[in-house]
Amino acid sequence: MAKLNENYLNIEEGYLFAEIARRVAEYQKNNPDKKIIRLGIGDVTLPLSENVVNAMIQGVKDQGAAETFHGYGPEQGYEFLRDAVSAYYKSFGVDVPSDEIFISDGAKSDTGNITELFDKDNIILVPDPVYPVYVDTNMMGGKNVYYMAGTADNGFLPMPSDADLPAGKAADVIYLCSPNNPTGAVYNKDQLKEWVDYANANGSVILFDAAYEAFIADETLPRSIYAIEGARTCAIEFCSLSKTAGFTGTRCGYTIVPKDIKVMSTAGVEMSPHAMWFRRQSTKFNGVSYPVQRGAEAAFSAEGMAQCRKNIEYYKENARIIADALDKANIRYTGGAHSPYIWFECPDGMSSWDFFDKLLNEVQVVGTPGEGFGKNGAGFFRLTGFGSREATIEAVERIKSVL
Amino acid sequence: MAKLNENYLNIEEGYLFAEIARRVAEYQKNNPDKKIIRLGIGDVTLPLSENVVNAMIQGVKDQGAAETFHGYGPEQGYEFLRDAVSAYYKSFGVDVPSDEIFISDGAKSDTGNITELFDKDNIILVPDPVYPVYVDTNMMGGKNVYYMAGTADNGFLPMPSDADLPAGKAADVIYLCSPNNPTGAVYNKDQLKEWVDYANANGSVILFDAAYEAFIADETLPRSIYAIEGARTCAIEFCSLSKTAGFTGTRCGYTIVPKDIKVMSTAGVEMSPHAMWFRRQSTKFNGVSYPVQRGAEAAFSAEGMAQCRKNIEYYKENARIIADALDKANIRYTGGAHSPYIWFECPDGMSSWDFFDKLLNEVQVVGTPGEGFGKNGAGFFRLTGFGSREATIEAVERIKSVL
Repeated sequence: MAKLNENYLNIEEGYLFAEIARRVAEYQKNNPDKKIIRLGIGDVTLPLSENVVNAMIQGVKDQGAAETFHGYGPEQGYEFLRDAVSAYYKSFGVDVPSDEIFISDGAKSDTGNITELFDKDNIILVPDPVYPVYVDTNMMGGKNVYYMAGTADNGFLPMPSDADLPAGKAADVIYLCSPNNPTGAVYNKDQLKEWVDYANANGSVILFDAAYEAFIADETLPRSIYAIEGARTCAIEFCSLSKTAGFTGTRCGYTIVPKDIKVMSTAGVEMSPHAMWFRRQSTKFNGVSYPVQRGAEAAFSAEGMAQCRKNIEYYKENARIIADALDKANIRYTGGAHSPYIWFECPDGMSSWDFFDKLLNEVQVVGTPGEGFGKNGAGFFRLTGFGSREATIEAVERIKSVL
Repeated sequence: MAKLNENYLNIEEGYLFAEIARRVAEYQKNNPDKKIIRLGIGDVTLPLSENVVNAMIQGVKDQGAAETFHGYGPEQGYEFLRDAVSAYYKSFGVDVPSDEIFISDGAKSDTGNITELFDKDNIILVPDPVYPVYVDTNMMGGKNVYYMAGTADNGFLPMPSDADLPAGKAADVIYLCSPNNPTGAVYNKDQLKEWVDYANANGSVILFDAAYEAFIADETLPRSIYAIEGARTCAIEFCSLSKTAGFTGTRCGYTIVPKDIKVMSTAGVEMSPHAMWFRRQSTKFNGVSYPVQRGAEAAFSAEGMAQCRKNIEYYKENARIIADALDKANIRYTGGAHSPYIWFECPDGMSSWDFFDKLLNEVQVVGTPGEGFGKNGAGFFRLTGFGSREATIEAVERIKSVL
């Protein structure tokens, strides 16, 4: 008789955003005339830039003629796109060779699938609060997840000393997300250096999620873990065009696995996460749609990047509008400056789901309850700058009335 | 210290097609003036049909305007595409509800990722020879793989009695691929009924790979496992637009997980592979590119299907041309009639890699050595009808000279 993966019994049934959608749908059903403004899910709203659209159309046309048709592509991604990603890193001073870049359909797939490379018995260290996918995907594999608290005291930037680990043990696999989702907090170079040194000293592997790096405005803040000396021997980085270039529905991301990371097997055989990821991707993945890769290449061109920066400034201006209102109400928050997210304490000690319901029911604004990102998110709330300007201004006016 | 997944040490380093590519590149380097014809990899060569191209261009244009922009889509796929797949099944008499269909970037991803739903200790039964991904992905998860021999005697269609299992044990998870890759052999309804009955009697789950179903010309042969009574309680089906509509580089597939499959956990909790796959896909996947889904929808339209049939007939005519040459040389083969593949015994008792080298060195034709698909493939060879007509005719003339 088939036995299923019973680890699935240990993960919570409802994904955070499904529960939000359920409450919103119920409210809308009972109040069909109310206009709801959604500043909850981290989804972009601005369209793809013109040069990306044109490149994708050309890519599609290529698929329509025998002479330019592309069948199975390289599982690691076309060289033209890996070179474009490498040049993008170079533009902010970080060297990443093309052959360490793996093109994928998005950072969510890769941060989930990377768990396959690790043995079941590692100590997995995850920030709390954080993007729920890290915990869920490890739970699915029956892994041992430990937490490090992000709190107002450490600016939601937990350091090695914040890790809640078994006595005498170090973390084997460490998730870092900077700029952080949901808090918008960004590690500085000294902080990341401390993490890299910790990983190299303990033989740990850092899984660094840089999905929001393009929102960093301060040049002294690291946009990549590889801006830190020593990272090439311990860190894997995930990034995506979702937030950088508005690809949430178009789907393209990339993962960097340096060849310098080496791990000894139990029997003393040297293993390479780079070689393993290549094997994983060539066996369980068949590459990203050719026209999508052409669009992604265009996003990294000078013209594409100029448009991306314009869109990111638009979202950050929205975040600033939200932050201004919180400033005026004397509410502490993180994020905004280098992130599309604003993260703040719910007023009057309310629980985050109570505040969610209050905003929905009283002023018809949807945000994200902090406890959906971990227990340290309890009492906090996330709003995003991804709405339209008009909707953001309107939402802020409404929110002010209940703060 | 991080411990990697040491099961990776147990899988063979080189994927079959990488070794082929290596030998071909070496030969071409030493013989730069020789024109090589490739009938090896199962990749299509005809371009996307015009209506698919137009639908994708419209999809891309939608992404370029705020009013029609699509951000994150439903992880299970857009309803318009799931409905189109459901209608496609109906066109050959099989009922598959839209909400049991999961759109993905391809059957390779799904047949690999589905292994996550099963416990490590199942008895996994795989045909030999077969598509190497089933074995490799199970080995990566440290699973127990057992084989059933496909031989000239059983027409390369192994039945339950051919399974080489521990005494007294039944298979828990059963891979079937029909039309088979690489042999082109197709199970008939009675044979599949025997498999479905076996699975229902033993509580096994069948993983049915239907990637080549569109090549079936005989209406009495099943194009889906769901053409068989009882399959809804035991079978998951994988299919793709790669071979049906030429999507190998455009990427879109679908997997059907019936809600009727229920498996008891060790503690007696009823578990649903449908619910688990939904959870897996919503946690580790973010859906298929919107313009690609629009293209796939168009492939399933009347106009799209007419073009698909035309292309499939073209590939099958190529296969017939290869088969004719084998007939004349009195060489036994399977496939061709309902498959793009021709599978035959190497002449003069040659090993399949020796015959590969002979064809490459003497007549510059590339095929696929049978032993790349399992030990029962030793001494056999695969040629595909996916080349151009001109190249196929030329290749057959060359091959004749060495048979």
